[in-house]
Amino acid sequence: MDSTERISIHRVTREGRQGTEDLVTREMPLTIILNNRELVTLLCSPLELEYLAVGFLASEGLIKSRDEVKKLIVDEERGVARVETEEEEGFDSELLFKRLITSGCSGGASFYRPGDAQNRAKVASQLSVSATRVFSLVRQFQARSGTFRATGGVHSAALCDVNGILVFSEDIGRHNAIDKVFGRCMLDDIATDDRIVITSGRISSEILLKVARRSVPILVSRSAPTNLGVRLAGDLGVTLLGFVRGERMNVYSHSWRIVSDGE
Amino acid sequence: MDSTERISIHRVTREGRQGTEDLVTREMPLTIILNNRELVTLLCSPLELEYLAVGFLASEGLIKSRDEVKKLIVDEERGVARVETEEEEGFDSELLFKRLITSGCSGGASFYRPGDAQNRAKVASQLSVSATRVFSLVRQFQARSGTFRATGGVHSAALCDVNGILVFSEDIGRHNAIDKVFGRCMLDDIATDDRIVITSGRISSEILLKVARRSVPILVSRSAPTNLGVRLAGDLGVTLLGFVRGERMNVYSHSWRIVSDGE
Repeated sequence: MDSTERISIHRVTREGRQGTEDLVTREMPLTIILNNRELVTLLCSPLELEYLAVGFLASEGLIKSRDEVKKLIVDEERGVARVETEEEEGFDSELLFKRLITSGCSGGASFYRPGDAQNRAKVASQLSVSATRVFSLVRQFQARSGTFRATGGVHSAALCDVNGILVFSEDIGRHNAIDKVFGRCMLDDIATDDRIVITSGRISSEILLKVARRSVPILVSRSAPTNLGVRLAGDLGVTLLGFVRGERMNVYSHSWRIVSDGE
Repeated sequence: MDSTERISIHRVTREGRQGTEDLVTREMPLTIILNNRELVTLLCSPLELEYLAVGFLASEGLIKSRDEVKKLIVDEERGVARVETEEEEGFDSELLFKRLITSGCSGGASFYRPGDAQNRAKVASQLSVSATRVFSLVRQFQARSGTFRATGGVHSAALCDVNGILVFSEDIGRHNAIDKVFGRCMLDDIATDDRIVITSGRISSEILLKVARRSVPILVSRSAPTNLGVRLAGDLGVTLLGFVRGERMNVYSHSWRIVSDGE
């Protein structure tokens, strides 16, 4: 399915109006059915739906590796992704669905409960990168963001190594864009540790948790973080870079991973 | 609670780094408990939590008027909003919670099912407004967006009449900002029909449905709509204005409500 649609609009200025055409980004509902049970309906861009389904399940902690996915069928026309996994013995599906109401919706809120963040493994990677290299990666990232330039309506996310972009995705939702990147990494067996994630979107606690769960040591945003995003980055060992624009950036945590040129 | 937090960061340019301070927007989890049952946890800005709780319930169709709210207690410290309503006879709470998984999470997807959009009442308001007036309202809206200017991290939403802003809210989530506006309208008995909503965020189908549900005839965004947002605006009788910047805008639907100056 095309990711954009051409529509008729009126363009209005103080001087008057004229009929013209505009390109808008497409949006579709994707219902994820896990082991014959309807789990969630995401609103998303009609691209890379397999990656989105797998990435969403991985971000929610419902699958840990590609091997757990026994079947994955996406019906784009009907907006349905069916995923089958080997269910664990004594698996409590009610609990899973209850959990998803809080952590899937807007969530991850359960992670803030005292003691929980401390129990999560810190990202241990010793990767370091120069500021000049980060500025260069963000320029490449900007150059790739094609649908955004055409429609102004989507977010982008990418997995990079220090040399360039390895995986790139776009979606109307900033969460979906990152889930697509991680879904592809899982399905195509692309390592995420010792690597860098760039996002066009703001860094809330949820985004930070997604990235830390995949052991990514450096998270880069062109936009702003929240205070909980910054705090979790510090607690979980993630180097968080915000407002990376042109030749400037803010380093919010673990600044030791950002080294001077030539180091 | 303050809506921003001052933190220590490193600012890095090609020339080097220096320690400085930055203001970041605060984020907190708010768990809404409806009639003693945990409904959802929203991540939000720590402002106007009563409005958010009521607005969220109204947007989900769980309450229709202020009279249905028998009790509303917000514990900001614990991040909990308890809402009690008079439960209907034969009210199927399982169904409600099932519905919320699809429509609350990322959702509203059920609305796309054939026949459903057609069954919803169209917005009938005969309100019209000049382009010049819209440009002026958006300038006022921009001037009000204080936390955004300070932190770059929040969305804004406002209810206006043709003369100016009546209700204004900010939140890290674009959905939450609109829910806060409508929650305040419900609690303070402020009419939303014959009025204008402005949002800083993109217009997806969910945002359009929220606004149509409150019978708002004109929806204004500084940003882009999706194709489903445009289609629903057409179907539901809402005038949708996007990319309203400076003295230009795109009119995506029901352009008859935008009149020339002096009309």
